[in-house]
Amino acid sequence: MKKARADSWQGYWTTKIGWAEAGKILVRGYRAEELIRHLSFAEAAYLVIRGELPTRAQARALDAVLRSGLDQAFISSAVPPARFAASAAPEAPAAAIAAGVIAFGSVTGSPRECAEMLAAAHRERTKRRLSLAEAARRTVGAYAKDKRRIPGLGHPVHKRVEPRAAALTEVAKTLGVWGKRAQLFDAVAREATRRFNHPLPANLAGVIAAVLLEIGFDPLEMVGLGVLSYLPALIAHTTEEIREGHPLRIIPPELGARYAGPAERPLPARHAKRRAGRA
Amino acid sequence: MKKARADSWQGYWTTKIGWAEAGKILVRGYRAEELIRHLSFAEAAYLVIRGELPTRAQARALDAVLRSGLDQAFISSAVPPARFAASAAPEAPAAAIAAGVIAFGSVTGSPRECAEMLAAAHRERTKRRLSLAEAARRTVGAYAKDKRRIPGLGHPVHKRVEPRAAALTEVAKTLGVWGKRAQLFDAVAREATRRFNHPLPANLAGVIAAVLLEIGFDPLEMVGLGVLSYLPALIAHTTEEIREGHPLRIIPPELGARYAGPAERPLPARHAKRRAGRA
Amino acid sequence: MKKARADSWQGYWTTKIGWAEAGKILVRGYRAEELIRHLSFAEAAYLVIRGELPTRAQARALDAVLRSGLDQAFISSAVPPARFAASAAPEAPAAAIAAGVIAFGSVTGSPRECAEMLAAAHRERTKRRLSLAEAARRTVGAYAKDKRRIPGLGHPVHKRVEPRAAALTEVAKTLGVWGKRAQLFDAVAREATRRFNHPLPANLAGVIAAVLLEIGFDPLEMVGLGVLSYLPALIAHTTEEIREGHPLRIIPPELGARYAGPAERPLPARHAKRRAGRA
Amino acid sequence: MKKARADSWQGYWTTKIGWAEAGKILVRGYRAEELIRHLSFAEAAYLVIRGELPTRAQARALDAVLRSGLDQAFISSAVPPARFAASAAPEAPAAAIAAGVIAFGSVTGSPRECAEMLAAAHRERTKRRLSLAEAARRTVGAYAKDKRRIPGLGHPVHKRVEPRAAALTEVAKTLGVWGKRAQLFDAVAREATRRFNHPLPANLAGVIAAVLLEIGFDPLEMVGLGVLSYLPALIAHTTEEIREGHPLRIIPPELGARYAGPAERPLPARHAKRRAGRA
Repeated sequence: MKKARADSWQGYWTTKIGWAEAGKILVRGYRAEELIRHLSFAEAAYLVIRGELPTRAQARALDAVLRSGLDQAFISSAVPPARFAASAAPEAPAAAIAAGVIAFGSVTGSPRECAEMLAAAHRERTKRRLSLAEAARRTVGAYAKDKRRIPGLGHPVHKRVEPRAAALTEVAKTLGVWGKRAQLFDAVAREATRRFNHPLPANLAGVIAAVLLEIGFDPLEMVGLGVLSYLPALIAHTTEEIREGHPLRIIPPELGARYAGPAERPLPARHAKRRAGRA
Repeated sequence: MKKARADSWQGYWTTKIGWAEAGKILVRGYRAEELIRHLSFAEAAYLVIRGELPTRAQARALDAVLRSGLDQAFISSAVPPARFAASAAPEAPAAAIAAGVIAFGSVTGSPRECAEMLAAAHRERTKRRLSLAEAARRTVGAYAKDKRRIPGLGHPVHKRVEPRAAALTEVAKTLGVWGKRAQLFDAVAREATRRFNHPLPANLAGVIAAVLLEIGFDPLEMVGLGVLSYLPALIAHTTEEIREGHPLRIIPPELGARYAGPAERPLPARHAKRRAGRA
Repeated sequence: MKKARADSWQGYWTTKIGWAEAGKILVRGYRAEELIRHLSFAEAAYLVIRGELPTRAQARALDAVLRSGLDQAFISSAVPPARFAASAAPEAPAAAIAAGVIAFGSVTGSPRECAEMLAAAHRERTKRRLSLAEAARRTVGAYAKDKRRIPGLGHPVHKRVEPRAAALTEVAKTLGVWGKRAQLFDAVAREATRRFNHPLPANLAGVIAAVLLEIGFDPLEMVGLGVLSYLPALIAHTTEEIREGHPLRIIPPELGARYAGPAERPLPARHAKRRAGRA
Repeated sequence: MKKARADSWQGYWTTKIGWAEAGKILVRGYRAEELIRHLSFAEAAYLVIRGELPTRAQARALDAVLRSGLDQAFISSAVPPARFAASAAPEAPAAAIAAGVIAFGSVTGSPRECAEMLAAAHRERTKRRLSLAEAARRTVGAYAKDKRRIPGLGHPVHKRVEPRAAALTEVAKTLGVWGKRAQLFDAVAREATRRFNHPLPANLAGVIAAVLLEIGFDPLEMVGLGVLSYLPALIAHTTEEIREGHPLRIIPPELGARYAGPAERPLPARHAKRRAGRA
């Protein structure tokens, strides 16, 4: 823990991102009005998060990543919490969106885990001058040994091809940003398919991880970018729920609810004998 | 908006609730260690929120309110978001609980709306010296006229008696805290049943509102107290999900998902002709 | 409440937004892979939320809205909660972002309130064939009478010009989307300045509301679009906090904390005499 | 990942916690109305979370844990996010509380990390028949070797004694629940003080961890119990903010905000020359 000594409280909230004072806003050193006039959203988002302007190809690749989430209806762990919350608290649509954002964790197909795997494998490859195939073999081998799922591969619904993953890969190749780390991802997918003897197609989180690594993002930042690519879906579902949904949604037995706890039982005598309300 | 002038930033974060300095914590003026030694949780919660110590009956009634939420499995809009979030982000159990807390809104059966209705009806009654029955008649009439649901009455599953609501009412009567506002709630329930000609039993949010009004809480505080009474259930469901649930939960067609949007259609030519990735 | 009868649970989760089955994803009727190949992020977001593709000018205007939030450091109610949460729970960056998203409410300068005002004033204007100036006079008059702040005008820091608001207005005019409702916003700003006799410049939320109304969004959807335009800032602040911030942030007396509660006082005898721990 | 096959969707949402049907609610097998009549909140919470009724001492110890959080004003990472959110979105008090709940992470002094350390040390001790002192020596040695902070010890403000931690320890000893794992915590604190040669008093999270382990909770459940013990403070601060706080709170330079990013710089020519709004 960095020590915040009494005399240093004045710099307690130091940021390199932006600054505002009367009539003037700087973002990473640039005037806000200039950015709004001359950049695209993808360029501005890159600048705000990374601190420097992207190249044209980087900006286009980021735009492609952001538009790849789109929507998959209820094949998502994030849309249902947003809709349950909106059905119960329609007066707070941003909070309902937040309930969905919370669900972007380690299991949801956040790009972070795959990016960390690829970054580590790439460092190892560079250090030991390994071929793509050999680096992939080591990576897949390590996950197989620990019986861990390889992040970025496989999908519960799309068993052969994830259409969004395939389209984003194609766009990234067209833009010339499918570089060394992304090719390593391809090699990992091939090796996993070989080793486990069944197709393990790249999923969207995996391709996003590969592309974002190539255009300069670090894995921690990818969590939020994954959220951003899904935000239009969360907005659409939240507003659809508030306008046309069911107030106070539940999960009834007809939709999967079941009780597997103890059968009905009486309170033990030592409790049941207490005078009601005087516990 | 209260003006925070430059010279007043030093008091920007002023609170009457508590204070801590080296080795000493005051809560509403009392030493924390004294409160931990001598109070119950219900007494301490009352003090923290209301600013003064409760009477014995008030503390017992608050304890009864807090233990009345218990759990209703998936007959809840708050449990499902917590479980979806926990299934996707098991590394963040508090955040999963927060996803459930967000769902305590105006539709969930928060006690707030019923309490506001009762408080207003009670003021009207006092001012105009109305009988219970007449005050209830006016209140029900006003809701009926606007075709608004009367808060605190009715339940989608428990059509005749809500067992928790009935037990909490009983405990409150035993403790002698079922006073004027609570009796007005009874009168409203009777009048609504008469007017709409079918049973509209008190629901839990309604009884909680009546009891909390009687023991001195105001409607805004009741939102959080409703959350508190359900927190053990949210903790239990979150941990059950992380230990025994399904990673990456979804809603499949078998459990109610359906698409009612446009049939498959091609992109209009002006879009489809654009070079891929150069949008 | 729409009634979900036993036989209708199968359609309980009906959506018009998107659908996914093995190897195929439809979004508003279009194939996901086509959208990723041929649209921009702004076009895709418009489609997901609104249901139909935007015109070129609408898409460009939406992109401008999304890039207008940028960052204002700590002149924001949303950045601090995200940073406090990230400092305490760095293992859950998406949840920290969610803590910031929750703060997009009625007071934060969400575009929703201003959009509702403009939409209502525009309907009134059309119905009664009022001039812009007359419609503005009525609107400002109504707010003044109720002593309500006019949404979309004024800023605590930028007293003369909000640079982002001015730049976005300029871009919208260049794109030809500064139509009737937006001009009514200008008229409201002029009338408010006249009536209150001091400059009340358009703030960013106001200009966003005007532009989004003109390009077809409804006020409810704008809450989420406001969040989206600020998401890059929330991502940047969350990652900056996790990498370079202070673990377990607090607000010390040096930064504004102050206690205004009761002075130290002893527990009343009836509590203090209880045996410790037996409360 | 447990496989949810098509034919098993009916049991997809299986729970052992509770169940509700018309007029009847079971919680862990007991009738809800019986629990409300005869238990205390602490007993009910224990049952809901753990699945079985507590002994009298366990229930009293849990009550003591729940009342130990109380409030520390702004010496907390959870209170500020709740207040910022409430100041921006006063229409959603539960969501503001949720913004605070999100901040109960690995750095906040959640009891979880300390409980995991104590549980592991206790298992090791039992397995190898170590003395308390020897088990403590190994534990402290392992943390020192990895330069990790020992969870449960030390506090930024209370350098000698954390009053809440001391009072809760005292109550737990009175109740006879300060058993083997708790004594191991004492030994770890002594060993850490000896090894690092300065006082490292037990903090509240550490004592809560020790007590909750002794009364049968597992570390995962403690995250939510830590939240629960702080919920009265979050309710009090949220309502205080909505009633008496500052709408749209910010962090001004006077309270610690500072910019350390690049100085003002012009956009590079390749961007600045683009026609405004046509990015």
